[in-house]
Amino acid sequence: MHLLYEAEIEIVILCKQTVYIFGCKDSVLQIKGKVNNITVDKCTKMGVVFTDVFAACEIVNCNSVEVQCQGTAPTISVDNSAGCQLYLSKDSLEPSITTAKSSEINVLVPGPDNDMVEHALPQQYIHSFKDGQFLTTPVSHSGG
Amino acid sequence: MHLLYEAEIEIVILCKQTVYIFGCKDSVLQIKGKVNNITVDKCTKMGVVFTDVFAACEIVNCNSVEVQCQGTAPTISVDNSAGCQLYLSKDSLEPSITTAKSSEINVLVPGPDNDMVEHALPQQYIHSFKDGQFLTTPVSHSGG
Repeated sequence: MHLLYEAEIEIVILCKQTVYIFGCKDSVLQIKGKVNNITVDKCTKMGVVFTDVFAACEIVNCNSVEVQCQGTAPTISVDNSAGCQLYLSKDSLEPSITTAKSSEINVLVPGPDNDMVEHALPQQYIHSFKDGQFLTTPVSHSGG
Repeated sequence: MHLLYEAEIEIVILCKQTVYIFGCKDSVLQIKGKVNNITVDKCTKMGVVFTDVFAACEIVNCNSVEVQCQGTAPTISVDNSAGCQLYLSKDSLEPSITTAKSSEINVLVPGPDNDMVEHALPQQYIHSFKDGQFLTTPVSHSGG
């Protein structure tokens, strides 16, 4: 699937499929049903809403994208992207989020009162040399 | 200081100064004496050799640069860069190396037999949600 529209798009997918979104701008895309994999590539100011993903949701080369998971996703990976908002549901709190070469990644998870709590993922890391190897610690944001 | 030559350059600085290297390509720059700060900005295939830095050596927006510290440097920071080789001396093993939005950063430190041992800094991080907050762990390279 290859989308280049600048409008609101809604897709209903019933079988296992892979969604690849490339070069979209100022759009909102809703993916209904369970899909195998979602890749958001080179998008700017894009919103993606999906229910369930079997494998992974990947965000690469993006700028200011918002991704909302309403169901479950085992892995969400963000690579070479800046300014990313990830909205997770109560069922999707277990996934591990992988980041590389990215900055300003915020994850919003439902809190105890069902209001969304924002967590900023670290984007800077300190490597200090100890006992013959480097030890990496993330630089946390204040008030994260 | 603003350098745009494509050749071997040698600078002797005796007082506290700041060195700013911008847009250099296929060059080797040697900085002698103690300087306050060194910034390498938007350079490609650049080599920088320095003895001592009081504050920090910063590598930003670079591609394939090699930086060698022969004396001491309290902080070396790499931001938005890919393919960076950092050569540290025995006196400069204490600095903390800070990375952000960078990939393929290798640090070479003198080993017990004075041969250089290469350490690849992690470039990918996993964030897992536990007890109401995200826990970040670096993804290590095999054989690092």
